[in-house]
Amino acid sequence: MRELLFKTIEGSVTAPQGFRAGAVFCDIKRLGTGKGSNKGNKRDLALIFSDVPAAVAGTFTTNRVCAAPVKVCIQRLRRGVGRCIVVNSGNANACTGRQGLQDAKSMAEMTARALAADVKGVNKISAADVLVASTGRIGVPLPMANLQKGIGQVVTLLDSRAENGRDAAEAIMTSDTRPKEAAVEFSLDGKVVRLGGSCKGAGMSQPGMSQSGARPPLAPLHATMLCFLTTDAAIERLALQAALNEAVAKSFNRITVDGDMSTNDTVLILANGRAKNPPITAKGGAQSKDFQVFQAALDRVTLELAGKIVLDGEGASRFVTVRVRGAKSFADADAAARAIANSALVKTSWHGGDPNWGRVLCALGYCAAELAEGRIDVGYSLPGGGDILCAVKRGQPTEVPFRTLCKITAQAAFDLHVNLNCGKHAALIYASDLTQEYVDFNKGDVNDPSSLGG
Amino acid sequence: MRELLFKTIEGSVTAPQGFRAGAVFCDIKRLGTGKGSNKGNKRDLALIFSDVPAAVAGTFTTNRVCAAPVKVCIQRLRRGVGRCIVVNSGNANACTGRQGLQDAKSMAEMTARALAADVKGVNKISAADVLVASTGRIGVPLPMANLQKGIGQVVTLLDSRAENGRDAAEAIMTSDTRPKEAAVEFSLDGKVVRLGGSCKGAGMSQPGMSQSGARPPLAPLHATMLCFLTTDAAIERLALQAALNEAVAKSFNRITVDGDMSTNDTVLILANGRAKNPPITAKGGAQSKDFQVFQAALDRVTLELAGKIVLDGEGASRFVTVRVRGAKSFADADAAARAIANSALVKTSWHGGDPNWGRVLCALGYCAAELAEGRIDVGYSLPGGGDILCAVKRGQPTEVPFRTLCKITAQAAFDLHVNLNCGKHAALIYASDLTQEYVDFNKGDVNDPSSLGG
Repeated sequence: MRELLFKTIEGSVTAPQGFRAGAVFCDIKRLGTGKGSNKGNKRDLALIFSDVPAAVAGTFTTNRVCAAPVKVCIQRLRRGVGRCIVVNSGNANACTGRQGLQDAKSMAEMTARALAADVKGVNKISAADVLVASTGRIGVPLPMANLQKGIGQVVTLLDSRAENGRDAAEAIMTSDTRPKEAAVEFSLDGKVVRLGGSCKGAGMSQPGMSQSGARPPLAPLHATMLCFLTTDAAIERLALQAALNEAVAKSFNRITVDGDMSTNDTVLILANGRAKNPPITAKGGAQSKDFQVFQAALDRVTLELAGKIVLDGEGASRFVTVRVRGAKSFADADAAARAIANSALVKTSWHGGDPNWGRVLCALGYCAAELAEGRIDVGYSLPGGGDILCAVKRGQPTEVPFRTLCKITAQAAFDLHVNLNCGKHAALIYASDLTQEYVDFNKGDVNDPSSLGG
Repeated sequence: MRELLFKTIEGSVTAPQGFRAGAVFCDIKRLGTGKGSNKGNKRDLALIFSDVPAAVAGTFTTNRVCAAPVKVCIQRLRRGVGRCIVVNSGNANACTGRQGLQDAKSMAEMTARALAADVKGVNKISAADVLVASTGRIGVPLPMANLQKGIGQVVTLLDSRAENGRDAAEAIMTSDTRPKEAAVEFSLDGKVVRLGGSCKGAGMSQPGMSQSGARPPLAPLHATMLCFLTTDAAIERLALQAALNEAVAKSFNRITVDGDMSTNDTVLILANGRAKNPPITAKGGAQSKDFQVFQAALDRVTLELAGKIVLDGEGASRFVTVRVRGAKSFADADAAARAIANSALVKTSWHGGDPNWGRVLCALGYCAAELAEGRIDVGYSLPGGGDILCAVKRGQPTEVPFRTLCKITAQAAFDLHVNLNCGKHAALIYASDLTQEYVDFNKGDVNDPSSLGG
């Protein structure tokens, strides 16, 4: 009998034992540019806290121009132990030079001091235990006085309730239309273990948004992706990092919005061991059953969160899974899938519900993968394994009528299948379409610098 | 005293001696999809004809999925001699398989037959003397009966008047808002020589176009670029090809619209020797004065035509010259300039007049060039050598106020300067911004397949 590995539960970062969260509004966006304001007083500072020291792991943007908080986290992760994550929206603290790096470190120091002073049971915490993250406009210094005030407040609000996890999920939103949370419960050697997380990132603005001239209600997103995960599993940091690398490779690294790569992309996980399972060790290796169960749970949560990023901004949008197979290597399959998913022409045709396989072939023609036009098959199906309607077979258009293909591409979600027929490797990319709203949202409004996205 | 090398003259492909052109409407777009229609009866078939055999040279898309007419031209160019170019808009004859290749060859054969039958003085002409080009929707078979009829008509209209050159320039338009022509007159060894051309390609749709739902009046462009050049200079085909390669590298290969590379991009030149200058030979080499004069004239015409492509669709658009220097190699400089010019986030910020140098740094961070954040300078100037306002110096934001930078980026044209400060190589790219209209135009309308672009 096949055992049910895990069940989906409500909540996010506060679902596992021994985690608390809180979020406040401290007007980071307004202060950052000296103009405009966050009229809704939407929370813009969040703190995720573990009652006990936790193993930490992370993955970050590979952009060589990376934000100050990313640099600080990469340094902190060498120790592999941490207590909390402090994160702000409204200002990316990217391209802010030496001052930005100092500000990111100060943000951690302020948090450590405030926690030690105001939170019961926290006797010893140093800035090195604090991870930092930021998202928002690039190139504007962090408003440190406001951050100081916000940090002083947020430590007093820390709680393990689900609402607090939700507050934190909302505080990291920028162009997102809704908070994104996921959590699962599973069992390791008889112990109940939980893993939860929240993320931000969105492919486009809200449908029905005001057109050109009107001010976007939130800072543009431009694909900065933040994800914070917590678990009460006991797992060594190297095993945790290995599991996270694998999970991110299959989820967040498989989504694309506009082909741009942010300066701030960050995924962090804290594992505090409160579930008291026998620790999963790196030595035990990827073959141990416990590691595999943990990996499956982590995969489930990250894939659910990644899907929520692609799906955010529904209405005009479509969710397209680009499946490439028959490539000479994984790199080739990946290059082919990304060329399709990042082509402005392919993405605008999806928006119109147009099965424009000509543009798909065109994008394949200029990608880095080894291929031959005369071998390529292109097809469309409903998501999750429906019949594939073949539009192109070995480079030749088939007899499947345009209208029949349209029936699939008119759906809110569909799969695009490409077989290069020259190898055995495959890759998939989860993609959204390109809409007018995307352009309108990202063009900014110079009459209101606070509306300008990073 | 510096001699004036050449003067700009009116006209295009019919400006040089011994060239005739004509264009007709034969409803290629309507027939291609079986639905919709070209209500304006806009000309969609053009013929450019040399009275005597001419040396020919060409450059083509490097997309491995290339259209049938491109394949036919590449084959024809091996002989290096030709008489005419027949070109249609409304259908790209790309991704049309074996039938498409046969159709492109038939198009040439029909043209040769019609010319031999109906044009005085054309006694011997074979299909091998006919070059073909197409632009329009991908994946739809050419409507051969309509082409046959159109070709039969167009040969009777051939004339050397400027209006006929203009008609041909209009017939190749798709999303272009206006025909694009350029011509110069210069002197080679005392003989008056002319060089002219027309092109198509546009960065975005017409400003003020109808929004979502309404049908675009013309087929979307998607950056297919066609250019046809004629000259009465006497020049050997290898010298002609060398000059064309150089001119294209500095003009059409320096523009970018959306980063997509078309299946149909084609530049062709015919040189018929009617100016009776001493022939420019490949043996004479790039050092000969005559070659240099010819190269300068060709550069002037191709750069003017390329600029017209970037500028087409004015109104909401901006013309941005991205100038990268200080790179380790030309490839690095080129990769950096293209990463900036193709970033959807950078291009949408230009649309809003936003000097969003953070997004510029972000794009540099993920490009293939060798660079270090701490060395990068970014600045803005008015086009053509105004003072450069430095926004970023060695990776650090400068004190130049946002509002001051906006004064430049609010202009219809400006230069963006990047110095990587790690080498001696430079590259530039001419770019346009990304607008709502671009998206609206390219998304198609599945209720009218004839509106769907290639």
